[in-house]
Amino acid sequence: MTTFGESHGPAIGCVVDGCPPGLALDEAEIQGWLDKRRPGQSRFTTQRREPDAVRIVSGVFEDDEGGQVTTGTPICLMIENVDQRSKDYGDIKDKFRPGHADFTYLEKYGIRDYRGGGRSSARETASRVAAGAVARKVVPGMTVRGALVQVGPHGIDRDNWDWAEVGNNPFFCPDAEAAQAWESYLDGVRKAGSSCGAIIEVVASGVPAGLGAPVYGKLDQDIASGLMSINAVKGVEIGAGFASAAWSGEENADEMRMTDGKPDFLSNHAGGVLGGISSGQDVVARFAVKPTSSILTPRKTVDRAGDDTEISTKGRHDPCVGIRAVPVGEAMMALVLADHYLRHRGQNG
Amino acid sequence: MTTFGESHGPAIGCVVDGCPPGLALDEAEIQGWLDKRRPGQSRFTTQRREPDAVRIVSGVFEDDEGGQVTTGTPICLMIENVDQRSKDYGDIKDKFRPGHADFTYLEKYGIRDYRGGGRSSARETASRVAAGAVARKVVPGMTVRGALVQVGPHGIDRDNWDWAEVGNNPFFCPDAEAAQAWESYLDGVRKAGSSCGAIIEVVASGVPAGLGAPVYGKLDQDIASGLMSINAVKGVEIGAGFASAAWSGEENADEMRMTDGKPDFLSNHAGGVLGGISSGQDVVARFAVKPTSSILTPRKTVDRAGDDTEISTKGRHDPCVGIRAVPVGEAMMALVLADHYLRHRGQNG
Amino acid sequence: MTTFGESHGPAIGCVVDGCPPGLALDEAEIQGWLDKRRPGQSRFTTQRREPDAVRIVSGVFEDDEGGQVTTGTPICLMIENVDQRSKDYGDIKDKFRPGHADFTYLEKYGIRDYRGGGRSSARETASRVAAGAVARKVVPGMTVRGALVQVGPHGIDRDNWDWAEVGNNPFFCPDAEAAQAWESYLDGVRKAGSSCGAIIEVVASGVPAGLGAPVYGKLDQDIASGLMSINAVKGVEIGAGFASAAWSGEENADEMRMTDGKPDFLSNHAGGVLGGISSGQDVVARFAVKPTSSILTPRKTVDRAGDDTEISTKGRHDPCVGIRAVPVGEAMMALVLADHYLRHRGQNG
Amino acid sequence: MTTFGESHGPAIGCVVDGCPPGLALDEAEIQGWLDKRRPGQSRFTTQRREPDAVRIVSGVFEDDEGGQVTTGTPICLMIENVDQRSKDYGDIKDKFRPGHADFTYLEKYGIRDYRGGGRSSARETASRVAAGAVARKVVPGMTVRGALVQVGPHGIDRDNWDWAEVGNNPFFCPDAEAAQAWESYLDGVRKAGSSCGAIIEVVASGVPAGLGAPVYGKLDQDIASGLMSINAVKGVEIGAGFASAAWSGEENADEMRMTDGKPDFLSNHAGGVLGGISSGQDVVARFAVKPTSSILTPRKTVDRAGDDTEISTKGRHDPCVGIRAVPVGEAMMALVLADHYLRHRGQNG
Repeated sequence: MTTFGESHGPAIGCVVDGCPPGLALDEAEIQGWLDKRRPGQSRFTTQRREPDAVRIVSGVFEDDEGGQVTTGTPICLMIENVDQRSKDYGDIKDKFRPGHADFTYLEKYGIRDYRGGGRSSARETASRVAAGAVARKVVPGMTVRGALVQVGPHGIDRDNWDWAEVGNNPFFCPDAEAAQAWESYLDGVRKAGSSCGAIIEVVASGVPAGLGAPVYGKLDQDIASGLMSINAVKGVEIGAGFASAAWSGEENADEMRMTDGKPDFLSNHAGGVLGGISSGQDVVARFAVKPTSSILTPRKTVDRAGDDTEISTKGRHDPCVGIRAVPVGEAMMALVLADHYLRHRGQNG
Repeated sequence: MTTFGESHGPAIGCVVDGCPPGLALDEAEIQGWLDKRRPGQSRFTTQRREPDAVRIVSGVFEDDEGGQVTTGTPICLMIENVDQRSKDYGDIKDKFRPGHADFTYLEKYGIRDYRGGGRSSARETASRVAAGAVARKVVPGMTVRGALVQVGPHGIDRDNWDWAEVGNNPFFCPDAEAAQAWESYLDGVRKAGSSCGAIIEVVASGVPAGLGAPVYGKLDQDIASGLMSINAVKGVEIGAGFASAAWSGEENADEMRMTDGKPDFLSNHAGGVLGGISSGQDVVARFAVKPTSSILTPRKTVDRAGDDTEISTKGRHDPCVGIRAVPVGEAMMALVLADHYLRHRGQNG
Repeated sequence: MTTFGESHGPAIGCVVDGCPPGLALDEAEIQGWLDKRRPGQSRFTTQRREPDAVRIVSGVFEDDEGGQVTTGTPICLMIENVDQRSKDYGDIKDKFRPGHADFTYLEKYGIRDYRGGGRSSARETASRVAAGAVARKVVPGMTVRGALVQVGPHGIDRDNWDWAEVGNNPFFCPDAEAAQAWESYLDGVRKAGSSCGAIIEVVASGVPAGLGAPVYGKLDQDIASGLMSINAVKGVEIGAGFASAAWSGEENADEMRMTDGKPDFLSNHAGGVLGGISSGQDVVARFAVKPTSSILTPRKTVDRAGDDTEISTKGRHDPCVGIRAVPVGEAMMALVLADHYLRHRGQNG
Repeated sequence: MTTFGESHGPAIGCVVDGCPPGLALDEAEIQGWLDKRRPGQSRFTTQRREPDAVRIVSGVFEDDEGGQVTTGTPICLMIENVDQRSKDYGDIKDKFRPGHADFTYLEKYGIRDYRGGGRSSARETASRVAAGAVARKVVPGMTVRGALVQVGPHGIDRDNWDWAEVGNNPFFCPDAEAAQAWESYLDGVRKAGSSCGAIIEVVASGVPAGLGAPVYGKLDQDIASGLMSINAVKGVEIGAGFASAAWSGEENADEMRMTDGKPDFLSNHAGGVLGGISSGQDVVARFAVKPTSSILTPRKTVDRAGDDTEISTKGRHDPCVGIRAVPVGEAMMALVLADHYLRHRGQNG
């Protein structure tokens, strides 16, 4: 997958190459996934109004039954940018916003598109969700779901986990009680012009055993790479993750027993990956999203001229970017698994 | 970098391609880094006796001054396996060890080299340390250091951090007090035939601003990929990492001020990476290593014939593989940074 | 570079990643190169009417002087398909056209977009010309020029070579006399509904010495790959090429002499590449284009139902696709050299 | 595949990654192919005495039947350099040999291993033959054969083509009459200390239809890349190649007819590749090898100090490197086809 486009350019999009032929694919289906990530759906996300309408530019054709399927050639998906509100970028143009890529871009390229963060904008992630919609179709029987498990310092109660709840609140939260608590917490954050971080969990079910590789191209390595490549992500863990550092080998072992004539595991601390290869269990990953850097409270910074100054970021920002990161995390998980599924089939038939 | 070799095959090694020419490189220097990872140096690591003597097979030549330097062509480094103790692999051969890759390998390939874990053995990481020794020379002025910051449930006191202490104890621990406490804790673990996990921190200083890319090929993405590719690693974080999820935007912001005529940061929660690009600050990453899966206490498992059974792993195993993971983590960090340094120079001159 | 799009889909285009920042780039300049390849410019090329108007979708921004320059982020270039004439594809839909990819596509994918050849259409090469326009700006001082040196069995007289003539005839022919002869020859071919092949020569001047690599990533290897990837190309040679097989070592040697204080070559049989690395001389490559497969004379073939039949291809086809292959060959040469220039700078500073 | 090693270093070798598991592979079989390329087998090749004994360092293991098979992990193959005759490199060290990479290496790297050409030595091709021996096993039912079809200006008579003859003469010549003529011709070349070029044809039979891709990753593109990457190769063509430029569309068309209930072609001017994808016919490629640059007759050159001088290359050189290029060409063809076979299986199942 290759993506292109800036926050305030004419359009963003991606090219998905190497997709198997013959998979049913139409714009409505991709749109369904994009709508989950779309801004402006509740008061807890940016009020930028983007329809995020996707257009399949290439790589599909009608099959013999008149349906539309992939042809095996590159699939280009495009999303026009619509709400590029004309505004004063004065402050952002010349001052380095703490936590943003302003300083590092300029150090690297000597030039940057300061409108809405340019290439570093989270708008780029819409392309990933679109590409992920294609990837979901590649592995037969696979389902990828995500949920928000922590907002600011407030985690869920895992005993309340109910996937059905995820669609019932604006946070993708699987714990109905926590969702209610988050609502008032986030209202406070939002009204204060502040922001908070979050932790997202992504679970892929129906992943066949055998995907990945023992060294380089490990499945967990590529999941870590894919999730860490999402804007604002600062940490990734698989299965028990950081918690396992404190455990003993006895506690951490996922014991096995024959069940219905097949080897099965009695726990899943490994998160579905052993030695870089999928075990057939659910693949479980979590990632941490830092608090949105754009906040109202003035912060110390410097400007391009080399003077000390302060900056306060107004504008239409998410108080917690972690919320909309849920469908993006799902998409990256789906892309990595689809890729490994095809590579495994190539090497091992 | 490409590596090859199994735990109990004749040799392991790697090929480093694309290295700049003219860098001084000899076997003694690489050996110095390998010796840090070498097994059998204290009672807290495996008692396998491997000299881990490295041989430069290609890619170096004498320069006009008679020194030995890289030529710019592929550098092959080899380490002969010496201590491949003949032993009874009966149990490992047919039973799936919990936490090991036995089951997933067989699912993927239908065959596996069961001697010492074969390709999935941590012995492969010696190749990485050797390659990392080359990578350290690529970025002028860069230093990469690592330290163990948690063993089992016991973390260090960061106020005691002293890099000089790292070489004074068998744990690469920067806190002399913690090191002492760990000694008795680990003796207990070792004598019980048990194991524990660990957390390692790697810090790269002297990294120029501008390395990385805004999307795909992000510096933090590649660091996450590199560290997660090390055996037994289950989590990676950059800068404040998972902790930042609980913070507010105000707390997380790394404010800036002009210092000695240059923009500088007042904190480093970002871990030296903003928007996927290095900021010139220290690049800071941590990774979690799960407890060694080979333990004496019997665990439930199944065998290849499909029968329920138990397994208890004897043999020469590290009670805490996280200790020897320190130089490996340093090597992976150095490799990723060297690669991005060359890519940045290619694109941006 | 990644391209996407089919002959009769809504649009074609490409994404150029890794381009250095700060290069002046606007649509008018890219358009200039595209206009050289554009169909319908003389009676010797297809009469399909495509404006081939290029649009820069991403990767550029105004610099401090108000000009438009590359930002270092992915550049997406798009060309809308306009003249997708509604027509009866009946014959092409079910019969395999000899010399076309109809049979092999169906064997590979089980589905194909039969409209105008779909993805295998030469229309895809417009994307390459657009990308090549970017690549031309990457290597300072480099010029890439191409010329048609043979049409059907009729070659040029190399003593008449005059680059200035290339723009004076519809064939990119550097020999004014040959151009005149080709005109009547090609009129005959065209009126007969037949077709002919061609040989194109591409010359890159101002290429610095040192680009390429001794093994894998050889400069000549990548030029061969790039040129052979153009539709209908069946052969590629560098410098003296196939002719050198008949020579002696004495004849083939490019002797050297100091000239103006610098080492210089007295001939260029090597075509500017020695051991996979550029020598600083002109890089010279030639490629052979087979005759257009779409001809009026009926040819024996089979259909999807498995019956013997005949096919005669009507429609708007180039009697000699080799003509419009000239700017495409230039573009591929420029892309390969730009890529190696950046890679060389990365490794060797 | 990655290779490493210099002509006069301790060893050369390669790492083959991504090979399917379960393929029978032992050293004796690889050795058989290497022996075809081995120097010193007749008076027409270099008299350097290298046993070229290959050692499998990794990636194989005994299977349940006790045979040795690939495990799916990286296969490292090594060949020790034995006959590194101590000699005076004085001339080669400081003078640039015309036709060699001496000048370009120094321009690129500022340093070069002048012993026997270092990394640019044709000795590197032994690694390719070894890797090719693995690749031959990947595509079921595929056979790759090569033959010398022209030596200096003397071509074969294609009517005499008999594959059985290829093993009956020291030239891999399929025409017994031509082989006899070449013997006296090459004796003359050899005694004069001169050299000549050659053309090699490689034919892969039993290649399934569908390998390759419509754009980028075209099968013919990758064959061209693979063959052009062999030392001293200056041209590559597929099927009718350069000759097709002179033909009409009617002559060039490979017509089709149903044969035994399956579509078949009546000719193979395409060389088995249509639109970048294999058609199921024999894949046919030819490549031109320039005359060996090392000749006895003095040639004008310059030295590192910048003075005009002359050079005459003594030593153990092949009068026609094209002869030993035959097994190398076969190996590269096998590697490209194996790679595409696995990629096709990955994408299309």
